[in-house]
Amino acid sequence: MGQDSAVVEAAATTPAPDATFIFNTLLFLIMGMVVMFMAAGFCMLEAGLVRSKNAATICLKNITLFAIATVMVWLVGYNIIYGVDEGGWMGTLTMWAADDTQPLDTGYSASSDWFFQMVFVATAASIVSGTVAERVRLWPFFLFTALLTGFIYPIQASWEWGGGWLDSRYGFSDFAGSTLVHATGGWAALAGALALGPRRGKYGPNGQINTIRGSSLPLATLGVFILWLGWFGFNGGSQLALGSLSDAIAVSNIFVNTNMAAACGVITVVVLCTFLKRKIDLSMALNGAIGGLVAITAEPLTPAIWQAAMIGSIGGVIIFVTTPMLEYSRIDDVVGAIPAHLFCGIWGTLAAPLTNGDATFIGQAVGVGANAAFVFPISLVIWFLMKMIIGIRASAEEEDKGLDDTEVGAPAWPDFSGSPPLRPAE
Amino acid sequence: MGQDSAVVEAAATTPAPDATFIFNTLLFLIMGMVVMFMAAGFCMLEAGLVRSKNAATICLKNITLFAIATVMVWLVGYNIIYGVDEGGWMGTLTMWAADDTQPLDTGYSASSDWFFQMVFVATAASIVSGTVAERVRLWPFFLFTALLTGFIYPIQASWEWGGGWLDSRYGFSDFAGSTLVHATGGWAALAGALALGPRRGKYGPNGQINTIRGSSLPLATLGVFILWLGWFGFNGGSQLALGSLSDAIAVSNIFVNTNMAAACGVITVVVLCTFLKRKIDLSMALNGAIGGLVAITAEPLTPAIWQAAMIGSIGGVIIFVTTPMLEYSRIDDVVGAIPAHLFCGIWGTLAAPLTNGDATFIGQAVGVGANAAFVFPISLVIWFLMKMIIGIRASAEEEDKGLDDTEVGAPAWPDFSGSPPLRPAE
Amino acid sequence: MGQDSAVVEAAATTPAPDATFIFNTLLFLIMGMVVMFMAAGFCMLEAGLVRSKNAATICLKNITLFAIATVMVWLVGYNIIYGVDEGGWMGTLTMWAADDTQPLDTGYSASSDWFFQMVFVATAASIVSGTVAERVRLWPFFLFTALLTGFIYPIQASWEWGGGWLDSRYGFSDFAGSTLVHATGGWAALAGALALGPRRGKYGPNGQINTIRGSSLPLATLGVFILWLGWFGFNGGSQLALGSLSDAIAVSNIFVNTNMAAACGVITVVVLCTFLKRKIDLSMALNGAIGGLVAITAEPLTPAIWQAAMIGSIGGVIIFVTTPMLEYSRIDDVVGAIPAHLFCGIWGTLAAPLTNGDATFIGQAVGVGANAAFVFPISLVIWFLMKMIIGIRASAEEEDKGLDDTEVGAPAWPDFSGSPPLRPAE
Repeated sequence: MGQDSAVVEAAATTPAPDATFIFNTLLFLIMGMVVMFMAAGFCMLEAGLVRSKNAATICLKNITLFAIATVMVWLVGYNIIYGVDEGGWMGTLTMWAADDTQPLDTGYSASSDWFFQMVFVATAASIVSGTVAERVRLWPFFLFTALLTGFIYPIQASWEWGGGWLDSRYGFSDFAGSTLVHATGGWAALAGALALGPRRGKYGPNGQINTIRGSSLPLATLGVFILWLGWFGFNGGSQLALGSLSDAIAVSNIFVNTNMAAACGVITVVVLCTFLKRKIDLSMALNGAIGGLVAITAEPLTPAIWQAAMIGSIGGVIIFVTTPMLEYSRIDDVVGAIPAHLFCGIWGTLAAPLTNGDATFIGQAVGVGANAAFVFPISLVIWFLMKMIIGIRASAEEEDKGLDDTEVGAPAWPDFSGSPPLRPAE
Repeated sequence: MGQDSAVVEAAATTPAPDATFIFNTLLFLIMGMVVMFMAAGFCMLEAGLVRSKNAATICLKNITLFAIATVMVWLVGYNIIYGVDEGGWMGTLTMWAADDTQPLDTGYSASSDWFFQMVFVATAASIVSGTVAERVRLWPFFLFTALLTGFIYPIQASWEWGGGWLDSRYGFSDFAGSTLVHATGGWAALAGALALGPRRGKYGPNGQINTIRGSSLPLATLGVFILWLGWFGFNGGSQLALGSLSDAIAVSNIFVNTNMAAACGVITVVVLCTFLKRKIDLSMALNGAIGGLVAITAEPLTPAIWQAAMIGSIGGVIIFVTTPMLEYSRIDDVVGAIPAHLFCGIWGTLAAPLTNGDATFIGQAVGVGANAAFVFPISLVIWFLMKMIIGIRASAEEEDKGLDDTEVGAPAWPDFSGSPPLRPAE
Repeated sequence: MGQDSAVVEAAATTPAPDATFIFNTLLFLIMGMVVMFMAAGFCMLEAGLVRSKNAATICLKNITLFAIATVMVWLVGYNIIYGVDEGGWMGTLTMWAADDTQPLDTGYSASSDWFFQMVFVATAASIVSGTVAERVRLWPFFLFTALLTGFIYPIQASWEWGGGWLDSRYGFSDFAGSTLVHATGGWAALAGALALGPRRGKYGPNGQINTIRGSSLPLATLGVFILWLGWFGFNGGSQLALGSLSDAIAVSNIFVNTNMAAACGVITVVVLCTFLKRKIDLSMALNGAIGGLVAITAEPLTPAIWQAAMIGSIGGVIIFVTTPMLEYSRIDDVVGAIPAHLFCGIWGTLAAPLTNGDATFIGQAVGVGANAAFVFPISLVIWFLMKMIIGIRASAEEEDKGLDDTEVGAPAWPDFSGSPPLRPAE
């Protein structure tokens, strides 16, 4: 079928304009709902990977960070992202309000779009939460979350998704946010980990590395299944439209590629563990799924399936290789968020030109570099300023007792015997 | 754009009638699914907030109550609600059957509507379950659930949602059920708590109040995230239509307001705890989300965002203030359902006229009063009748051993050390 | 309204062709998402029903099996199912690739259909996982999973859903797969259980049957709620279309019947336990829900509600009766998957002609028999071949220590006291 006849046929068969509007809006709402549920996924993953003495605190952090993101994206975040001039560096410092006066021009309900964008911002904050767990105090974390969701994320997102300089000058391409969401969260997490230092007992003298086990691998697994589910919304919803034949086909292809990348991330880690470690590390296999998902996020639409499989597999390799590297660097990333979200995010972004002819390696490198050059230093400055002024870390005694005792005042699992304070290396 | 031209444009761009029908039906189905999943949310919340020795029993209660609600709403409930005459007091005692003979007149599939209404009824029963946990016997609870879901809820819902007297005479307004669902559950729960009395050891002599800790705060947190997710369906689906531009916009605005109220409920509790209690009570923060959600449920459409934020915040204040008040009254509400669903439900209902010009304070007060005057006494009578005739409470010995042993015959967490029978006050 | 006038009206009111396409595609995507989430449901159910010492391993199995199913259905499975000639026995051994060149002819996006079919295949593999838990080694299980999802399931599914001999010659009817999915998983699980033998300590000498308790009934309950949710997608999505009035009505009726069967499965088990066992076995009540769901899956559209209730109730009876029978046969099915998926699957398939005039008892019996005659022997051969060549079972010592130690190298719940190695009978 020639292109022309296809266009003619399409013109004769397209939905009524209002139906297109409803489809687009419905996409934002449904996909936004499952992305919102990713907050539960991160919470379960993190609660399962911290010791039981810190599990209530991590739950409190995760539900509160979502609430903070909601408020900050409303107060300033959204208009910083989307109020930017073409080619600009930042939008306006104004509160968002729904504007549906020209619905058929925008093609979707303003609130549905806001909702979808907001849950993306919350995702970036969730990433930070896991890395800095078990030692960060609550309020400094909340303060950082407010700055991240209100300013840091929105400013750099405006460069691309708002139509700012990264989009207009460099043709940077980041479909659903391997860099704009995941690397942003990853850089902010890395800055936090550096400012905080590792948990007590994680690294011993003479390069000794201790294993600190998470309190519940079943909850961590549940978390990853929820994230996997949410990612269909994350990537599929980022098509931003459902009201035409081609949009519906695009969303479907995105689903297939997203799922394939996740699956190959898991399988790759399982195979590598089998051959190189004999035992199969469940936490790493779970992170393999996330690594594959993050990697495909920069470009889930254009890859052929085998390419999605490769992109996800390399995500799995990155998890397998960089997780111990991070430990050798004596950086303490409690849930492995930096390999999954930062390293795989960069990989996915740089891989986009392999399948998307509109993206260039130069443009992608500029985008990755700009994101890094902005998010990491500013996060580091904020963490260190807070460290000097208000303190960001629990005392050694508090850390040994567990943050649940000092921050929440209630144990997460009071009926069961608690976690031993420190476990020697294996 | 003038009102007239908008109407003209709409007429030219609206979806085909069948498409509107499909959109409306799809709204019921999708939103009904996530509301159905709230049953899992309540179950996890309650399983996490009871002691481990009662966690299997609460799970059994939650899945069975959903099953009972399904059957009762089919047998009598639905037609009691919607078979009512205009201005009437109760519908017909007949079984529901789908009637799709005039699909384009109703505008949605009959079964999709039934499904959506049914999961609402189940929600009310889930509320009761948490309050009366750890001491109520299974079958009296099931019996009460059958009466609640088959008769009590449907009768009072018919007054408003069926077009009965409360709707036609008083213009009562309750968009998604702050009163009709949540206060109903709350009154029934309060009646149960009074009939049962507090758990053994909850209140000591001389006004002593003991803390009884829940067995798993991570599961409780998961439960609240699921409820938060489900609430998009609860409130968004209550628009009851998606097949027009204005309906799609309305559902989107409802999503934003619902989310904002929940977020502000959490933040308010977190801030209040920080300043007034120094430690941040996770269970109370979780209830802050629910309180905000319940409060916005009476009117999630008309508030501006800042108003939704205020309504949710006051919900959080109510949680913070009334939870200890209930304890001082020596009423034992295991999961804090009465503050969240009853008190915040009343608040939200009375707040509706602040943003919805069609609602009046008088009308709202009549609705709240009628609901209270019907649900609370009849629930109390049923609980006390059951208490006299069949007994509603486990024996002291059974309660100390835990209901899982006597009702289910299996521990919820057999591999882990169980809960100590009683914990002294803190 | 006469049939003719209805047709005329329909012609004038139907959605634009592209809108129909979008509706159909959206059905596959949304319902596919919730079916995908059933993988989390099976994982939680199984993690909750194994001992804590094997809970990490079962999580690893569940996420990896989903990944394997993804890859195998892509590599060969899909085209084996749908590349079959009319009346044929098997499709082609070719990789699937999306073909959307004639979108309005197929009426849905090719990828959305692939996604929906793929998650069905994963479901069958999830069923096996639970039965063979706590003793099977990881890689033999993964190998079996690859063969099941790549070949065994697809071949028998091609006979019916691909339009092969069972469909064209016998008019076999299996709407959403009571036989094609659930009995397939059940037969494969039974074969695995026979090849593996029971867990150490499950059956003592002289016919002694020991109870081995699951580590977390709350997680198992969560799993069943997730499965119940997913089943709306499983059965509702199997209508395969949403873009017309009658399809939307059909999906809605399927929701109601599916929910009713699940509810009656639960209630039946609860009532039977109350009268015949005095205590109410939560695991069995949970399986009652699954049994009801599996039973209605063969024909969720044509039953009246009371018929759906009966079909589900009989599913509950089957669970109640056959679970102990399986134990008396000294077959060790850790999660009760064989009663739920195999026995209830056969029941539901044979019950289809009761409500669906197009199905015949002969045709259904042929389908059930063909499925059994193919899946069970070939599964048995594969399990026994693997047993001879690579070994399928952990050593006695490994089993006693728990597979988490030997396969994963990390305990699932390290902070809590582990499971006692063996528990004597009760």
